[in-house]
Amino acid sequence: MPLDSSIPSHLRCPRTRTRRVSDSWNPPVPMYSARGEESVQNLVMAYLGVQSKGDEMKGRACAAFQNILQSFKQPDGPGRHDLVQFVDAEGYLNLIAVAYWIDPTTYDKWNESPAISHWWASEDRLKEGVGYFREVLRPRMEQFETIFTHEHGPLEGVSILLGGMSEPIIEHGYWGSMRDRLPLSQTDTLDPSGTLTLKEGTPALGGRVIVGGHQNVALIRSGEDWSLTEGEERRTWFEDIEPVLHEGMNYLRDDGLESGCYCNRYLHHMDENGNLLEKGFGYSLWRSITNLEQWAESHHTHLQIFVTFNRLAKKFKNLTLYHEVSVFDAANQYYEYINCHPKTGLLRAV
Amino acid sequence: MPLDSSIPSHLRCPRTRTRRVSDSWNPPVPMYSARGEESVQNLVMAYLGVQSKGDEMKGRACAAFQNILQSFKQPDGPGRHDLVQFVDAEGYLNLIAVAYWIDPTTYDKWNESPAISHWWASEDRLKEGVGYFREVLRPRMEQFETIFTHEHGPLEGVSILLGGMSEPIIEHGYWGSMRDRLPLSQTDTLDPSGTLTLKEGTPALGGRVIVGGHQNVALIRSGEDWSLTEGEERRTWFEDIEPVLHEGMNYLRDDGLESGCYCNRYLHHMDENGNLLEKGFGYSLWRSITNLEQWAESHHTHLQIFVTFNRLAKKFKNLTLYHEVSVFDAANQYYEYINCHPKTGLLRAV
Repeated sequence: MPLDSSIPSHLRCPRTRTRRVSDSWNPPVPMYSARGEESVQNLVMAYLGVQSKGDEMKGRACAAFQNILQSFKQPDGPGRHDLVQFVDAEGYLNLIAVAYWIDPTTYDKWNESPAISHWWASEDRLKEGVGYFREVLRPRMEQFETIFTHEHGPLEGVSILLGGMSEPIIEHGYWGSMRDRLPLSQTDTLDPSGTLTLKEGTPALGGRVIVGGHQNVALIRSGEDWSLTEGEERRTWFEDIEPVLHEGMNYLRDDGLESGCYCNRYLHHMDENGNLLEKGFGYSLWRSITNLEQWAESHHTHLQIFVTFNRLAKKFKNLTLYHEVSVFDAANQYYEYINCHPKTGLLRAV
Repeated sequence: MPLDSSIPSHLRCPRTRTRRVSDSWNPPVPMYSARGEESVQNLVMAYLGVQSKGDEMKGRACAAFQNILQSFKQPDGPGRHDLVQFVDAEGYLNLIAVAYWIDPTTYDKWNESPAISHWWASEDRLKEGVGYFREVLRPRMEQFETIFTHEHGPLEGVSILLGGMSEPIIEHGYWGSMRDRLPLSQTDTLDPSGTLTLKEGTPALGGRVIVGGHQNVALIRSGEDWSLTEGEERRTWFEDIEPVLHEGMNYLRDDGLESGCYCNRYLHHMDENGNLLEKGFGYSLWRSITNLEQWAESHHTHLQIFVTFNRLAKKFKNLTLYHEVSVFDAANQYYEYINCHPKTGLLRAV
């Protein structure tokens, strides 16, 4: 059977830029992309976080986080959310609800409703001893791509809302395939322009800080689910792969700016009670997809991950991998930090 | 100053295929391409070899090799030649004269002159107890590219005949830049078609064997000169880089077929008396440039070389590196083996 394109048929258009590989490209293993309805034109990805330090603040952090989860039950709330957490390099616990909408009008109604907008705008948020942040990103479908290792494996993230899966795709198994999966790459170089700007506040002083994005900031959510692994495969994940992945994530977290990575979080899924699940993902924001490509293709911290994955790929049966990548128009990014430490999210990069 | 293109101005043409990177690409370090006169339209690269096994055959091999060197002094001989050697996986010593012409008419005159053509065609060549081979490749300039680390460093190989060097080029520092440096890639995918064919003889029986090439076979000559290195840089070359390079060369030599590498030789330069010089190159023939790209970009044996080079690149001052890459029309390849063992050159792949 001929290979499918990762680009959905309704988003294919006359190219002004060629795909890197020719039509005869034959990927070594099959991979898949999530597929949505043609009616879906924009996505909303809201990373809503609570930040705290020390065991004595954990109760307050959890209460704050529960408020965010409750807010999802308001009318027009997200179609889907994931709960994740991580401890950052400064030792802060960050609890994050990742909420997805496949209709920005619904998101806008939710976000602009008094229950939501007043809560986030309230001065009370500045007095609770915890930090809050919102990173809200709205790619057009032309600016969004996914890849999954398993045809019938679990969809993840916003792809669960999209609901479908492609046939095996041609655009994978070579550097540059991530870009080639983005429909907009058919006609656009996806070059960045502008810079991050401080719209309000001063990171070093805490309080409320709003950061403005720039054209073609890129986001990757790159995840793995090891919950179904057993025996040798499970041992391989814990002993051979995860440590190398962890090291790459730490590089991006600590020194990513030199590679054009604005921030990186290596996140662990949890349930509503805070129990860790056996899956996770790296979340990172980049100056451009070119910077992301360059790190992935040439930096030893990623090549180490790549070689390790490749070497062991034959052993994988139940370990499932996926990623979702987006680029954003400048106007489709909103970054707000409330009483967060100055290395949080984009604060370290602005 | 804006970056130069590796593609000489007279070979630039309206593109039907885009370069992988946009005009804003900024390579991390400067690199250069050799430049010839516009009048040069085709190159001829002749790898003329003598194969022998055991010390007792060395005298005959050297005599045979001297015959080849003498033949260069005939009218219309090569403008330039390199002498190299290596011991192959079967333990045979291979002495190779790499001869270059920048005018195929001159080569044809030389090659078809009785002194040359009769000597190669003679039955005597079958009775001397040594093997001979000729691998003669004729790229059009649209099918040829080079890269050099040093602006004023030594030109090498056929580039010495071209004589000039570009300004710093844009097409390097990313996977796919090799292809982007080939002028033909502006309009062509460089996909292979056809297969190697046995035109005459039987490899297992020895004697005279002629192999036919196919469309878009690719050749890389990738070299290094460590003669000017000193101290720490020299130690780095011998202890950290060369062993990793050697391992990659051995992989291609022994198992390259699975990656689309028809043959690989890790060659050491020598002078006319057989004394080794402090430079060498890998020579390999590939089913296609896509196969070469795929090995370089994803196989651990090359990524190991790549990461090692990158990690240590800052230390390099006097170690010079270069490569020349060509793809060939089916008709512009000639492979002849006389009494060579069946793993020689393309014999193992046909």
